[in-house]
Amino acid sequence: MTASYTLLYHAGIPGRGEYVRLAFEAAQVAFTDTNKDLYTLTGVNGNAGHPAHLACPLLKIELDGDAKPFYLSQTPAILAYLAPRLGLDGTKDDADLGSEHADIRRAHVSQLTATILDLSNEIHDTHHPISVGAYYEDQKEAAARRAEDLRKNRIPKFFRIFDRSIAQNPAQSGFLIGKHATVADLVLFQVVDGIAFAFPNLTKSLRESGDYKGVYALRDQVAALPGIKAYLDSGRRASFSNGIFRHYPELDPETSA
Amino acid sequence: MTASYTLLYHAGIPGRGEYVRLAFEAAQVAFTDTNKDLYTLTGVNGNAGHPAHLACPLLKIELDGDAKPFYLSQTPAILAYLAPRLGLDGTKDDADLGSEHADIRRAHVSQLTATILDLSNEIHDTHHPISVGAYYEDQKEAAARRAEDLRKNRIPKFFRIFDRSIAQNPAQSGFLIGKHATVADLVLFQVVDGIAFAFPNLTKSLRESGDYKGVYALRDQVAALPGIKAYLDSGRRASFSNGIFRHYPELDPETSA
Repeated sequence: MTASYTLLYHAGIPGRGEYVRLAFEAAQVAFTDTNKDLYTLTGVNGNAGHPAHLACPLLKIELDGDAKPFYLSQTPAILAYLAPRLGLDGTKDDADLGSEHADIRRAHVSQLTATILDLSNEIHDTHHPISVGAYYEDQKEAAARRAEDLRKNRIPKFFRIFDRSIAQNPAQSGFLIGKHATVADLVLFQVVDGIAFAFPNLTKSLRESGDYKGVYALRDQVAALPGIKAYLDSGRRASFSNGIFRHYPELDPETSA
Repeated sequence: MTASYTLLYHAGIPGRGEYVRLAFEAAQVAFTDTNKDLYTLTGVNGNAGHPAHLACPLLKIELDGDAKPFYLSQTPAILAYLAPRLGLDGTKDDADLGSEHADIRRAHVSQLTATILDLSNEIHDTHHPISVGAYYEDQKEAAARRAEDLRKNRIPKFFRIFDRSIAQNPAQSGFLIGKHATVADLVLFQVVDGIAFAFPNLTKSLRESGDYKGVYALRDQVAALPGIKAYLDSGRRASFSNGIFRHYPELDPETSA
């Protein structure tokens, strides 16, 4: 069945919307990208129909022949839904996979995606360890302690898991799983770039350690995918600024790792 | 294809393993429940094969006819994989759903599950706002501030989303979506009980407000499902203690909401 897709997200920041946006860009599948009606569709009084949506990104799905659209929220649920439809579910060119093994492959892509999104959330919580509703300036002391834990323990631990998955991928494609890029690789690309923006000193030491070569090579390999290259060259990619990934120099000291 | 399932998780605490356990119990499908080899299977040196697993719960899947098992981690990925196999994906008795609409139904179940697991994570982070690797006692001040935000803003916001989804479910089943219980309902059941353990004063005021009747009725409806009732009656359900949901009286004052 053919479908039309609209991504509804805040304007001007990459945020979690970018994880969905990259899937369409990598697959070179047309979609509408807008923040129109976002605030009347989501939240406790949202009118996007059942079930209710806590927050965006919100994907509007218009199936040919249907009178009404569907709305889907939650980044991992959106990516799991889109992955097989956009050829980003890790099964491409694996004709020998039976349907049961293809389902496990897709579940592994969801596992990897969930883990990378967990890291994305931990990074977000670094500058808002107390409350997402309060200002960074009112939780700076807690943020400094949490950022230290993120730099010293959490990012290295996650990166080791990713590096190991890339190294042990039976397809040896340079991606996390399968022969081609999946939604998990796209999310990791964005998180690696976000960390480079927020923590340039840490990134320098992670790169120089040589411990995460697979992760940084994957980042470059995703950037070179035809759809992603065209997207980056277009100038349409929103810059990091004041979203998930924020650069506070005091959270990224020079001897960072 | 028939399969054997083993849930690998820490012994003695419900934790995130319980969300998977409840799916098997509700479906009355046999599974092995163990912590054997857990620490050699997960983490950066884990030997559970590709891709690497950051943490448990870990599901071991042995497909009939396969020489080697598969391992799957990440609670939302495990639940999305199991839901259609255990009749917990929201499509049961909806014979009129075509395959595209059934996929959207499953995606909505994943959306709801992800949102409830987000709340579960926020509750966990309340007693560890700075670092999961440090003691509660070393982050008590930050925890007090974060718990206040959780009680006043976050839990009520999430509960309103759940209550609205139950009220607007076209099937009017008392569940979040579809005619029967899904993995999302099971996770919500456990989170509601966990909140009652960790925040009894808050729970009293949430119940007395009358604003979340659907959520509490759903909790009782899940407890009465034949598989869950048998599980609760068996005494096998692990008590809440020192895991995601912890009762620190100072985080749950008497005038709580």
